[in-house]
Amino acid sequence: MGTDSALPMGHTERFTKTVTEGDVYAFAGITGDFSPIHVDEEFCKGTRFGTRIAHGALLVGFVSTVMGKMTARLPAPGGVSYRYEVKFVGPVRFGDTVTTELTLAEARPERRELIFRARCANQRGETVLEGQTILKLIG
Amino acid sequence: MGTDSALPMGHTERFTKTVTEGDVYAFAGITGDFSPIHVDEEFCKGTRFGTRIAHGALLVGFVSTVMGKMTARLPAPGGVSYRYEVKFVGPVRFGDTVTTELTLAEARPERRELIFRARCANQRGETVLEGQTILKLIG
Repeated sequence: MGTDSALPMGHTERFTKTVTEGDVYAFAGITGDFSPIHVDEEFCKGTRFGTRIAHGALLVGFVSTVMGKMTARLPAPGGVSYRYEVKFVGPVRFGDTVTTELTLAEARPERRELIFRARCANQRGETVLEGQTILKLIG
Repeated sequence: MGTDSALPMGHTERFTKTVTEGDVYAFAGITGDFSPIHVDEEFCKGTRFGTRIAHGALLVGFVSTVMGKMTARLPAPGGVSYRYEVKFVGPVRFGDTVTTELTLAEARPERRELIFRARCANQRGETVLEGQTILKLIG
């Protein structure tokens, strides 16, 4: 499919960011998701998390960021994210540092698709998101 | 599972928002995804979209918002988003008005899971995201 040399199987890209209260509050404002689990500290004291946690969809944004880094390595005009299948398997608290990693796992040239394994982990190496994404080659 | 009266099968919740340039630029700043398809108008003139488009992950944020509305209808302590499986099937341009709709499609009481069909559509009724989400009941 002409991309094998640009993006070999097993190729990995990463992005790391410390998630702040400001990130989560801005994310709530953009998306409209002001669920108490994200913005009400008093409510959260009574949950198993004990404090406010980031939106899972914010982690999906990090996956999108790493997809962008992958796309930048493809021959123009590149590709677009087509499908995300993700599980949120642990909480992200304010101040946690999240590393998002994508690895090229499979190519489906007949469908012009690249399949990536996706994982987000916190500063202790605990997985907080896992799943896969599909990139559709364009042009 | 004690939730059937609070959330009957087929129950639907919606959220509508006009997506602005400011939303997309703030989203890029939070997530780190400054892919040219989102922030470089000159680059985008050469793509099939013709202009900058919103991040697909922003739509996932809208799905999260409607999940929050669903959760608010459950008996305390409610639930948390566990799994998202979504396809991006059309572009969202700046100024498009996106309506996100979730419908309770299935209950799996033995796994304490509720399954929702998810769809985002623009002001012309064209689908831009489709998929499903799983809510895990907590407490």
